[in-house]
Amino acid sequence: MSHMTIDEASKDLGPLKDRLATISDLNSAASVLAWDRQTYMPKGGVGGRAEQLASLARIAHEMLVSDETGRLLEDAGQAEPGSEDAAILRVAMREYDRAIRLPARLVAETSRATGLAEPAWIQARERSDWSLFAPHLEQVLTLKQEAAGYLDGDHPYDAMLDRYDPGSRTQRLRIMFDELKAGIVPLVRDVSAGLAEDRVAPLRGAFDKETQDSFGRAVITSFGYDWSRGRQDPAVHPFCISFGGPGDVRLTTRYDPNLLQISLFATCHEAGHALYEQGIDQSYSRTPLSGGVSMGVHESQSRLWENLVARSRPFWAHFHPRLRDAFPGVLDGLDLETIYRAVNAVQASEIRTEADELTYDLHVLLRFELEVDLFENNLTVAELPEAWNAKMDEYLGIVPENDALGVLQDTHWALGYFGYFPAYSVGNVLSVQLFEAAVQERPEILPDMERGEFGALLGWLRENVHSHGKKYEPDDLISRSTGRPLDTAPYLRYLESKFGEM
Amino acid sequence: MSHMTIDEASKDLGPLKDRLATISDLNSAASVLAWDRQTYMPKGGVGGRAEQLASLARIAHEMLVSDETGRLLEDAGQAEPGSEDAAILRVAMREYDRAIRLPARLVAETSRATGLAEPAWIQARERSDWSLFAPHLEQVLTLKQEAAGYLDGDHPYDAMLDRYDPGSRTQRLRIMFDELKAGIVPLVRDVSAGLAEDRVAPLRGAFDKETQDSFGRAVITSFGYDWSRGRQDPAVHPFCISFGGPGDVRLTTRYDPNLLQISLFATCHEAGHALYEQGIDQSYSRTPLSGGVSMGVHESQSRLWENLVARSRPFWAHFHPRLRDAFPGVLDGLDLETIYRAVNAVQASEIRTEADELTYDLHVLLRFELEVDLFENNLTVAELPEAWNAKMDEYLGIVPENDALGVLQDTHWALGYFGYFPAYSVGNVLSVQLFEAAVQERPEILPDMERGEFGALLGWLRENVHSHGKKYEPDDLISRSTGRPLDTAPYLRYLESKFGEM
Repeated sequence: MSHMTIDEASKDLGPLKDRLATISDLNSAASVLAWDRQTYMPKGGVGGRAEQLASLARIAHEMLVSDETGRLLEDAGQAEPGSEDAAILRVAMREYDRAIRLPARLVAETSRATGLAEPAWIQARERSDWSLFAPHLEQVLTLKQEAAGYLDGDHPYDAMLDRYDPGSRTQRLRIMFDELKAGIVPLVRDVSAGLAEDRVAPLRGAFDKETQDSFGRAVITSFGYDWSRGRQDPAVHPFCISFGGPGDVRLTTRYDPNLLQISLFATCHEAGHALYEQGIDQSYSRTPLSGGVSMGVHESQSRLWENLVARSRPFWAHFHPRLRDAFPGVLDGLDLETIYRAVNAVQASEIRTEADELTYDLHVLLRFELEVDLFENNLTVAELPEAWNAKMDEYLGIVPENDALGVLQDTHWALGYFGYFPAYSVGNVLSVQLFEAAVQERPEILPDMERGEFGALLGWLRENVHSHGKKYEPDDLISRSTGRPLDTAPYLRYLESKFGEM
Repeated sequence: MSHMTIDEASKDLGPLKDRLATISDLNSAASVLAWDRQTYMPKGGVGGRAEQLASLARIAHEMLVSDETGRLLEDAGQAEPGSEDAAILRVAMREYDRAIRLPARLVAETSRATGLAEPAWIQARERSDWSLFAPHLEQVLTLKQEAAGYLDGDHPYDAMLDRYDPGSRTQRLRIMFDELKAGIVPLVRDVSAGLAEDRVAPLRGAFDKETQDSFGRAVITSFGYDWSRGRQDPAVHPFCISFGGPGDVRLTTRYDPNLLQISLFATCHEAGHALYEQGIDQSYSRTPLSGGVSMGVHESQSRLWENLVARSRPFWAHFHPRLRDAFPGVLDGLDLETIYRAVNAVQASEIRTEADELTYDLHVLLRFELEVDLFENNLTVAELPEAWNAKMDEYLGIVPENDALGVLQDTHWALGYFGYFPAYSVGNVLSVQLFEAAVQERPEILPDMERGEFGALLGWLRENVHSHGKKYEPDDLISRSTGRPLDTAPYLRYLESKFGEM
């Protein structure tokens, strides 16, 4: 035979796929250990668990950057364009390339620096003392800037973004955030802060945990969350986690005994992530194609189910009598409109994770701008608190009382997660773009929602987003599913219509 | 300097210890995954979890048998006799030697054969059809016999024993089991089977799970189980598991809604294992010295707390009013003697795991004799069911109704765990030997027990057994702690006195 056929080329991928599957298994094992640490691990396990996780991460990294993996990738050649093998090679090559470019010394120093920065941040936040955290952040930032130098990008911040959203670029995000700023800041100014507490008040009361739990479970069961392939447990910081495939995708939630919406929306948010992971093609398990394609698309799924569904009128048309009945004596007589207004109350506030749907993006915008300034060396770590407060005042009209409620509130920087925040806003923007595309193709979605049926919506998402895993690049996936690139217009129209009305 | 000092020799162990610590981390990670599988994993996780566990086991094995580990062990030379480093080298060398002797092909074939044998056994037991399991058992046995050929031993079965109880020998166990047979068979014959049900009856009733759970927790809290370094969860088959150190040692239990003692004694038994693991020197974590020294010594701890403590009069002197109060309306008026007789009722029965304290060893004896016969080629797999029933009749006076209640009842053979069963009886024998040594040195132990205080007993066990981990060989540990080698006399005296009286 004079040339290698496609079939022969595919056969050659066996050893590479085995190796990638083993690396996937190590990462999945680490995720199980992380799940356990966040849910049920006794405090005596802290030290041992840190060692176990460090060993798993080190071995997985060593396997990825090994000569053997390099050789297998080199030998793999070209798979048929558009095939799954081609996608596997593309994603594997990117991960290998990214890992191999960073010197082992830099990886180890970053791991050590973030390991020290995290407890320093915890202490700094507890005491609201920026000076305890600043030197650690300086070091983490310096290492991340050095890493950016080894990686590709038109802008030093691109390398940070690329880790979470492959293909994401600073320049395009700047345009997106400018559009969000122009659209949202005036909307927020029009909101009368005084009204928010009145609106939320009807959902204050004494809500026993078990009933909150069973109501939340009923809601996400109706969404289509498959309990035979997952579970829900309590955790301090809710999260969703999966282990290399759609067969075991877990979520966690937290309960406020006096404020109903904390648990309910955390559950719906994490269920959005979980529905994505449960919907990925089973055959992608243990390959580089498993898992969501980007943090931005992942957040689009969580925000879609949290906001477009669970904060909508059609949803509450179905669930409001059920919520009332679940808490007799507490929510008696509550009508649809009161609930709808309560779960959509807007109030500028200091903490991002507690922000309402409308002000949320301004918190993200602020972080994006500060991170870009840091990576452009237009801002120093020492200047961060002041810059933070100035932007809070400009965008939200409030200045945090102290740094714990301001620049020290998030864990991301301590962990070295520069470039992660923008995914939250990309997710918001994309959630509306996807929801509108789904409703346009399947008009039954909205009337179904009023009957507590979400199969048409989930089916559309499965077909157009979930099932593909990492097969397409994020931009391609968005274009394929919605017919155009990421676009802020539908999202801004939605916000204006929803919050302008109220 | 003309010669290497001890200090220099110790320093050289750094890279070896790091490598062994990483292997320990991989095994600990696998244990976390195993715990999760047995407790909370949804059924959709089965396939992925099997892959993750296989990868972790394969990588840990490859690291152990690698040239690098061999070179580090060779370079380690001799540590100071009696030092911890010497013990680390001894245990590490044994594990390395055992692993390196078995051809990779044999390890893989055994893993595949047991992987197929286990589901075949489950099906065979469900249908009580020996023919479904026999061909699988033939293959597993053949592979195990081949393995024995690569390993040391005066007898082919020695290699099986050595895996669970280093230093254990067929010849010595034969003597031990002959002594047990001579002592226990006549005692069992004297027991009137008809009485057992009458004796157990007072502890039958309706016991809600939560109260059973909280009573069990109170009991093992009084034993000294440290909840900040462990937890208890429900599981179908109760077990205890630790993750490379004493900081996180978990147990599980199961509940029978109508029979109080199932959960209580499962909890006490697993707590015995857990107290051992929680008591191991913290500095042994992630070294070859972590974990219990042998399955026999491990079972001695579980049986000591289950039988010598929780089935004793002093224990119930304290706990019987508390048990009565925990279940008002169910156990009203139950007196100490009735409870004591109920938890010590004897009745020859078919299933080992449900056997009472007196007949338990006869179940083990039977398995030991059959396993030795198999490894001596005096018995074929085809002859096993008949041989099983004949021995049941001889030792316990009953013939199982079918193979599901007989030769198919245990999972051990399907998993290739030949040589494991004897540890149960070694544990029983040793539990009394250790308890008597403890009471002799600390006479306050018995009066303390009547007040629900177990600190003196736990303290003695910590000092003489637990803290040492794998530092000493099992035989050395037994001699150091009790002043003589394993001895059936105290155990037989104890059984005679306890069950002769009733």
